[in-house]
Amino acid sequence: MIGLDKVGFIEKAKPICGPNDAICRPLAISPCTSDIHTVWEHALGDRHNLILGHEACAEVVEVGSMVKDFKPGDKVIIPAITPDWQAVESQAGFSMHSNGMLNGWKFSNVKDGVFAEFFHVNEADGNLAHLPKEINVENAVMLSDMVPTGFHGANLAEVEYGDIVVVIGIGPVGLMAVAGAVLRGASRVFAVGSRQICQDVAKFYGATDIINYRDGDIVAQVKEAMGGKPVDKVIIAGGDNDTFAQAVNMIKPGGIISNVNYLGSGEFINIPRVGWGLGMGHIRIVGGLMPGGRKNMEFLARLMKYGRLDVSPMLTHKFNKFEDLESALLLMKNKPKDLIKPVVNLS
Amino acid sequence: MIGLDKVGFIEKAKPICGPNDAICRPLAISPCTSDIHTVWEHALGDRHNLILGHEACAEVVEVGSMVKDFKPGDKVIIPAITPDWQAVESQAGFSMHSNGMLNGWKFSNVKDGVFAEFFHVNEADGNLAHLPKEINVENAVMLSDMVPTGFHGANLAEVEYGDIVVVIGIGPVGLMAVAGAVLRGASRVFAVGSRQICQDVAKFYGATDIINYRDGDIVAQVKEAMGGKPVDKVIIAGGDNDTFAQAVNMIKPGGIISNVNYLGSGEFINIPRVGWGLGMGHIRIVGGLMPGGRKNMEFLARLMKYGRLDVSPMLTHKFNKFEDLESALLLMKNKPKDLIKPVVNLS
Amino acid sequence: MIGLDKVGFIEKAKPICGPNDAICRPLAISPCTSDIHTVWEHALGDRHNLILGHEACAEVVEVGSMVKDFKPGDKVIIPAITPDWQAVESQAGFSMHSNGMLNGWKFSNVKDGVFAEFFHVNEADGNLAHLPKEINVENAVMLSDMVPTGFHGANLAEVEYGDIVVVIGIGPVGLMAVAGAVLRGASRVFAVGSRQICQDVAKFYGATDIINYRDGDIVAQVKEAMGGKPVDKVIIAGGDNDTFAQAVNMIKPGGIISNVNYLGSGEFINIPRVGWGLGMGHIRIVGGLMPGGRKNMEFLARLMKYGRLDVSPMLTHKFNKFEDLESALLLMKNKPKDLIKPVVNLS
Amino acid sequence: MIGLDKVGFIEKAKPICGPNDAICRPLAISPCTSDIHTVWEHALGDRHNLILGHEACAEVVEVGSMVKDFKPGDKVIIPAITPDWQAVESQAGFSMHSNGMLNGWKFSNVKDGVFAEFFHVNEADGNLAHLPKEINVENAVMLSDMVPTGFHGANLAEVEYGDIVVVIGIGPVGLMAVAGAVLRGASRVFAVGSRQICQDVAKFYGATDIINYRDGDIVAQVKEAMGGKPVDKVIIAGGDNDTFAQAVNMIKPGGIISNVNYLGSGEFINIPRVGWGLGMGHIRIVGGLMPGGRKNMEFLARLMKYGRLDVSPMLTHKFNKFEDLESALLLMKNKPKDLIKPVVNLS
Repeated sequence: MIGLDKVGFIEKAKPICGPNDAICRPLAISPCTSDIHTVWEHALGDRHNLILGHEACAEVVEVGSMVKDFKPGDKVIIPAITPDWQAVESQAGFSMHSNGMLNGWKFSNVKDGVFAEFFHVNEADGNLAHLPKEINVENAVMLSDMVPTGFHGANLAEVEYGDIVVVIGIGPVGLMAVAGAVLRGASRVFAVGSRQICQDVAKFYGATDIINYRDGDIVAQVKEAMGGKPVDKVIIAGGDNDTFAQAVNMIKPGGIISNVNYLGSGEFINIPRVGWGLGMGHIRIVGGLMPGGRKNMEFLARLMKYGRLDVSPMLTHKFNKFEDLESALLLMKNKPKDLIKPVVNLS
Repeated sequence: MIGLDKVGFIEKAKPICGPNDAICRPLAISPCTSDIHTVWEHALGDRHNLILGHEACAEVVEVGSMVKDFKPGDKVIIPAITPDWQAVESQAGFSMHSNGMLNGWKFSNVKDGVFAEFFHVNEADGNLAHLPKEINVENAVMLSDMVPTGFHGANLAEVEYGDIVVVIGIGPVGLMAVAGAVLRGASRVFAVGSRQICQDVAKFYGATDIINYRDGDIVAQVKEAMGGKPVDKVIIAGGDNDTFAQAVNMIKPGGIISNVNYLGSGEFINIPRVGWGLGMGHIRIVGGLMPGGRKNMEFLARLMKYGRLDVSPMLTHKFNKFEDLESALLLMKNKPKDLIKPVVNLS
Repeated sequence: MIGLDKVGFIEKAKPICGPNDAICRPLAISPCTSDIHTVWEHALGDRHNLILGHEACAEVVEVGSMVKDFKPGDKVIIPAITPDWQAVESQAGFSMHSNGMLNGWKFSNVKDGVFAEFFHVNEADGNLAHLPKEINVENAVMLSDMVPTGFHGANLAEVEYGDIVVVIGIGPVGLMAVAGAVLRGASRVFAVGSRQICQDVAKFYGATDIINYRDGDIVAQVKEAMGGKPVDKVIIAGGDNDTFAQAVNMIKPGGIISNVNYLGSGEFINIPRVGWGLGMGHIRIVGGLMPGGRKNMEFLARLMKYGRLDVSPMLTHKFNKFEDLESALLLMKNKPKDLIKPVVNLS
Repeated sequence: MIGLDKVGFIEKAKPICGPNDAICRPLAISPCTSDIHTVWEHALGDRHNLILGHEACAEVVEVGSMVKDFKPGDKVIIPAITPDWQAVESQAGFSMHSNGMLNGWKFSNVKDGVFAEFFHVNEADGNLAHLPKEINVENAVMLSDMVPTGFHGANLAEVEYGDIVVVIGIGPVGLMAVAGAVLRGASRVFAVGSRQICQDVAKFYGATDIINYRDGDIVAQVKEAMGGKPVDKVIIAGGDNDTFAQAVNMIKPGGIISNVNYLGSGEFINIPRVGWGLGMGHIRIVGGLMPGGRKNMEFLARLMKYGRLDVSPMLTHKFNKFEDLESALLLMKNKPKDLIKPVVNLS
């Protein structure tokens, strides 16, 4: 990112490695919708010569003196969120907000991102994870953000055996929310989205019902399919501030609405008073940034290693040169019909 | 309640006792702000000849054939919420929504209330609790609604050792939320309210800081007292739909906002997008009707029996004739300076 | 059960239907190892003319005056555990212990069981569940005990995404624990058992590693496969009191050992002090009877309805006459090589 | 500790401060029963010239280059447990087992303790907490181990409003478990111990019933006081391996037994099969080392700062010279009648 609305390659000094840190070289990278927000929707304000990117699989090239578990040459998974682990917030279970709200998000936000020859990882022992040999570098990139964010949606929704779950938005994060809900025991899963390829892949991940918002009000469609009964949980992985009102109006008392969608504009999220039980309906509303860090990467990687999760149907566009990155980024901006997620393999 | 805006005494047939039920005679009763909402703010719509009241301590006069644990002559605590215990919602932990949202609330809503010579209790074994001899009937009335609602606020907020808690609204429910927060381990407790007597009693229950909204924006006042740092939990026991935005703007990432205030008007509750971390701040918002039933009554009564909770400072106005009930009700409507809660002792 | 070690068919009066109850006619039934314990291992002491059986799918033939949601002719799922829903224990979330430890277990324990022309169900609205038309009566019988008990093991173990889980014992309950662990997000799953057919079906349900205790110490085998590292969770669905020590010696600090195996003899379960971290290792040990009731049946049935769980590989032996019941029971006693579970279809 | 059974003062080099660490000078220190175990019961094996002590309040004298929140001259609370915060176990919520079971315990275990002119603290930003000016250094020493261990017992037991709790053992940790149970909402609290001073202080912290094991079987005594009913929770802060069987035999189905007592000898903890419901009673058994670290210290310190907890009744013996430390240590060994806890004030 050279400036607002402008991207290109630049030369920068190689980052410096502190005693707890690592310097890595990307093996595979993928642009994310957030990168698009940053450049073309100005989500982070005016930035100059900021290196983009927070999704990567990498090789360690240097480690600090205090790093014990990683060494140059190790192949590693890179989480998009790399918390400060000593922070009080991390100790309280909210590492993504270490030392301030959302402050676990470092790449392409408070420092340069991973779309570079070399990038810096803070607290390497706590934020890198060894890449199991059973997982190829392209699939591994999905562990940076898509898998943990979608699965965090299912975790925040506390999906239980037999729950009927609605996932609103089935881009790559929503697709992983579908997969995550099924892997926590959801029974019926409504996937709300309009693009054909996303609907097909949602079914691959276990969606039982597809709801297209172009066919009318999604609350009415879900209610009709449910014979008028409410659903148990709603995971929001797309839409906008008004999506919450739809969620409230389709969920049961005691249900949970979990949001993993970045809300880019608008002053308020509006919660309908009557649907919310006059404040008395025990409909819980929560939204949160994915947890990063090593433990989360290791546990999610095991799902891929042991065949519980196959991310390959999401990788619709593959490139293999660093120079292709700009094309990959523009794909995410222009969203052609057949796109879910592009990946650039540099290994 | 004879009709909207009109109250008086009427003659009605004694209620009929089903096989699982009990008929009770009140020993002490208390009007609640909800009764005022029902009559003068038309919260439940137009009702005719509905007996009001859901706060009582009573004596059993008749039990159904299936009732095992209670018999005529037993003195009992009456919870305001008397769920259908076989319902799927009750089995899922949300008995207050048994067979439909808020449907655990029967008294003076789907059937006659407790301001009568005799009243009906559904599922007596599950909804009555024996009154310990250490608790007098006046104090016991506070177990119907004030104690369980306030304490539910603290439970929903998952108050932990050392938490800094703000309680917004310090009528009797808010005062019990203060007491409940302290009894779950809160350290600093901000009590937000303007009436002198409520402030004094809030301090009795452990409030460390009083915030008066007449002195300016409560967010600014709390932030100043906190040196700019956010608080851990907010319990809403008063205010209106806009109170939620205040709560969001003073709480930490990972904090919980719990509401036990009946929201009587307005279309939406507005959640500020930025304060809510762009949907990513893990600020949980939940509101819920108190849980009723026998277990909850027994456990809360023990707090009074063993001296952990003294509700008597809330009972500012005492009456002792059934005829005084109308005066007590009008007290709640007119809220004189020295009122927290009136009680009518019929024993 | 005519007496200890003696079974046969007897004539008894049709059970009487109380106001909250239902009388049902079995459509399919299955004997359980517990029935064997009762008759041949004298687990419940000396009983005479007790009708056995607690696994059935049925048709309602009569309902009490207070029953609202079921009527004669309805096809229903019967949970082995049918709690008293008004009990304080049920309100506290432990309905299986309603009115006393294990007292939610009524069939063939405190009253006659389901191996009869007609049987009695207490609190029908809370304990029956409508049978979805997508589930046949044979598969539905697995919802009485095998599915909820195995899945309860996974719930008690709080299996999370990526957890490495050991299931000790892979009879039908253990197989359902394997399936339940996978459906809560387990990655690697060790299944411990010796019979070939059970090993094969364990793999069908997602076991990644088979451990045969005939091949040596199971702790050593698991540790070797794990490269010396501990596992995250252990579910005990077989073995005896000594199995707990094995579990402690293979699990991580912070891990959970959950037991769903009925412990029939021995005075003590021995927890190794050192392996348990000198009392400081945060290894949680818990064991519990399955939760019964309608809600649990409805949610688990949805897993079968929406294709998340297929119980048919467990039904190795099928019969279709009431008279075959004795043969089915003896199969469970003699456990031939190819047996997992017999079922008698009476529809 | 010079060797087994032998203590004295020795000269050692000042510890070296790594980039994340701090060097501190004690302002107040207190010996703990664990120190007695280490020296005279050989709990950690043969050690030579190991500096004892893990309870201290201190002043920072040096910090590493990466430390942000502390500087020389700061007065700080020192937790007995100082985890490695980047470890996978810490990320999973079990920081006391960071990089191995019990490995968050560093002082006087894997490195020298705090009974020295200077001592070393790993990961200072994550393991120190600023001392509020409202707390004096003597009381602050109780935050190192006594308060967090006792309160952890109450947390592990998940004490809820109205719970009836038994605390077995009322040395300083047990007394803090009593205080912690009351501050989580316990109603009736049984304190089991024989020493008069401990009984008196237990009542100060809210114990309602004192049980003296010298007066007979504690299970029988508790049951008699309870009219035969079981209690809700048991916290073990004393006794030995056999204490668990007593706890199982007095607790309800669904109850929790939490242990914070270091179990120094014996091969097994014996859990009675029948009392444990044949493995089916949902009686949860868990024991764990206290959580250390900054967040825990800050939150517990607030309880003292805002007047919820007064530890001064436990400080029965006060000294004020470094040389007095040996006397204080021998007090803990000999346990005179009037001792609860000695403290040496060096400020």
